[in-house]
Parts: sequence; C-alpha cells; structure tokens
Amino acid sequence: MTSQPIRSPVRIIGIDPGLRRTGWGVIETEGNRLVYIACGSVEPPDKLPLASRLLAIHEGLAAVLGDYKPAEAAVEQTFVNKDGAATLKLGQARGVAMLAPAMFGISIAEYAPNQVKKTVVGAGHAEKNQIQVMLKILLPKAEPPSADAADALAIAITHAHHRQSAALRLKVANL
Amino acid sequence: MTSQPIRSPVRIIGIDPGLRRTGWGVIETEGNRLVYIACGSVEPPDKLPLASRLLAIHEGLAAVLGDYKPAEAAVEQTFVNKDGAATLKLGQARGVAMLAPAMFGISIAEYAPNQVKKTVVGAGHAEKNQIQVMLKILLPKAEPPSADAADALAIAITHAHHRQSAALRLKVANL
Repeated sequence: MTSQPIRSPVRIIGIDPGLRRTGWGVIETEGNRLVYIACGSVEPPDKLPLASRLLAIHEGLAAVLGDYKPAEAAVEQTFVNKDGAATLKLGQARGVAMLAPAMFGISIAEYAPNQVKKTVVGAGHAEKNQIQVMLKILLPKAEPPSADAADALAIAITHAHHRQSAALRLKVANL
Repeated sequence: MTSQPIRSPVRIIGIDPGLRRTGWGVIETEGNRLVYIACGSVEPPDKLPLASRLLAIHEGLAAVLGDYKPAEAAVEQTFVNKDGAATLKLGQARGVAMLAPAMFGISIAEYAPNQVKKTVVGAGHAEKNQIQVMLKILLPKAEPPSADAADALAIAITHAHHRQSAALRLKVANL
C-alpha cells in the first residue's frame, strides 16, 4: 500500500462582478469532490450614487467573506466590450470586488470566460444554459437566485479544478 | 453692521485615480480662501498582481484619509477612451479610489476634466501646464511630486468652488 497525501477540504469563493449585480458562490473541494456551501448576489439599488453602490458591493462581499471564510477566491476575467462607458462601470465594480478578498488576505485567481465554460461544460463556446445544466449535476444542492450567482459558482468550480497550479502562480503577494 | 454667517474651514481631498499612480491632494477652503495642506501619490509596484495593486491603492488612500481627515472628497470623471483594456484598468483603480472615502463616510463629488480646467484656468480646453501655472498662484506652498498629485489638487480646488451645490446633489446616501 502506498501512502496518500492528507487532503483537507479547501473553501473557495467565486465572484462574478457587476455594478448592478455582483454574484458570489462558495464551494468546498476535497480531491475530486465538490460540496456546495452557499451562493447569492449583491444588488445595490440603481438610484444610489456610484460611490454608494460601490460601498454596497464592498460591504456585501465583506459580509460574505466574514460569514463563510473562504481560503481562496476566483474572479472571471472581464470581457472588454466596445462600449467604453459599460467597460468603465464594470471595471469599477470589478476593482471593488477584487479588493474585498485582498483585504481579507485571500489569494485571487482569474479565469477567462471560455476557461470557465471549458472546465464546467467541456467546451469553450458553451451556451449559458449548458453551464446551468452542469451546475445541477456538479452541485445538486445549489439553487442560485440569479444568473450571476450561477456564474460565480461556475467560476469557483473552475478554480477548484485549476487551483493547485493557479494558487502558486497568482497568490496575492504580501505587501 | 450686518452680521456675517459663521464659516468654518472645510477640508477637501481631490483624487486622480490610476492603476499605476493615484494622485491625491488635500486643501482647506474658507469662503474664498484656499489653504494647501498636503499632496502625494500612491504608486503600487507594477510587478504585483492586480489584486495587490488595488489593495495598495486602497491602503494608501485609507492612510491619507486617516491622517488628514477630509470632510469632503472629489474625483475626476474618467475620460472613456477607445482602448477597452485601458478603460477597464482605469475603472478598476477608480472603483477602489471611490470606495475609500465612501468607507470613511465622506461625500464624493465628481467633476469632468473640462470643468476642472475651466475652474482652475478659466478655459475648458486649457493645456496641462496651464493648470500647473495656476496651481503655483492658487496654492503657492504646494510642490506636487507628480502630475497626478497636481491634478488631484486641481480637482480639490474645483470642488472648493462648486461644493455648496455639489455637496447637496452628490452627498453619499446612507445605506
């Protein structure tokens, strides 16, 4: 009999940033096993000034990080579209969404959208609903309240599959 | 003799966000009088991962806000250029830069670049160096270490001129 390395479960948060709605999903991974923990989305009221919406995203994510204490975080690499104003809005939300785990000292990996699709569905050009079908199989207990929460879980699953090399590459440097 | 309203000095921070360098400048305004307090820039090392650079911007601005305790903040409205990747980077820095005063409960006003030029120089299409010439006149004690720190002071001056109406319009809503 060969001895196996001892593996303890690692808790991962996936984040799908957006100014109108930032999705988050927490899972645990232990070897090949995935366990659903929680998911949701932070939705700052549209009518608030920008700074207040950013504060709501920060406080929402900080509460989730405090409640679920993930050890690692993963964020989707943002698609840079042609609308400058939309890109700027998304960038502002994304900056705040990446800051929250950094403030908690949690390493943050980034994955391109087609990496997420390829990991979860098996094809880089999968449709959105194929991700949701696979989520039901991979995390049967999850009932994401929004597409952004579902995407966040998909990002967390992607990190669970890639984390051993990614964690070494992308670990947040100590400042 | 008519009685004058009692005016107490108001401390303002101007912020010019950027991922490579975020400028800041603190002034006090009392009626028409402007007093220079401090300025500088936060420069996260280029080589750090994105999340660490955003954390450095946050921690740098949080330290400045803690040290100088401004009552109001002003940020330049970002120029949305045609390069999506650059806009995204700037957006991420800007989101983090606006979050810091919001976390301190400080109201944040936003001014377009030509409003800043018009207020400081008198013309919306002024050259950058005209702003620096006017800064020497308006805040003779200031010796900004970078163009971003000078821009941040110009934004603070702009807010000092517009703050009475702007503060009412743009005050961060209590969440």
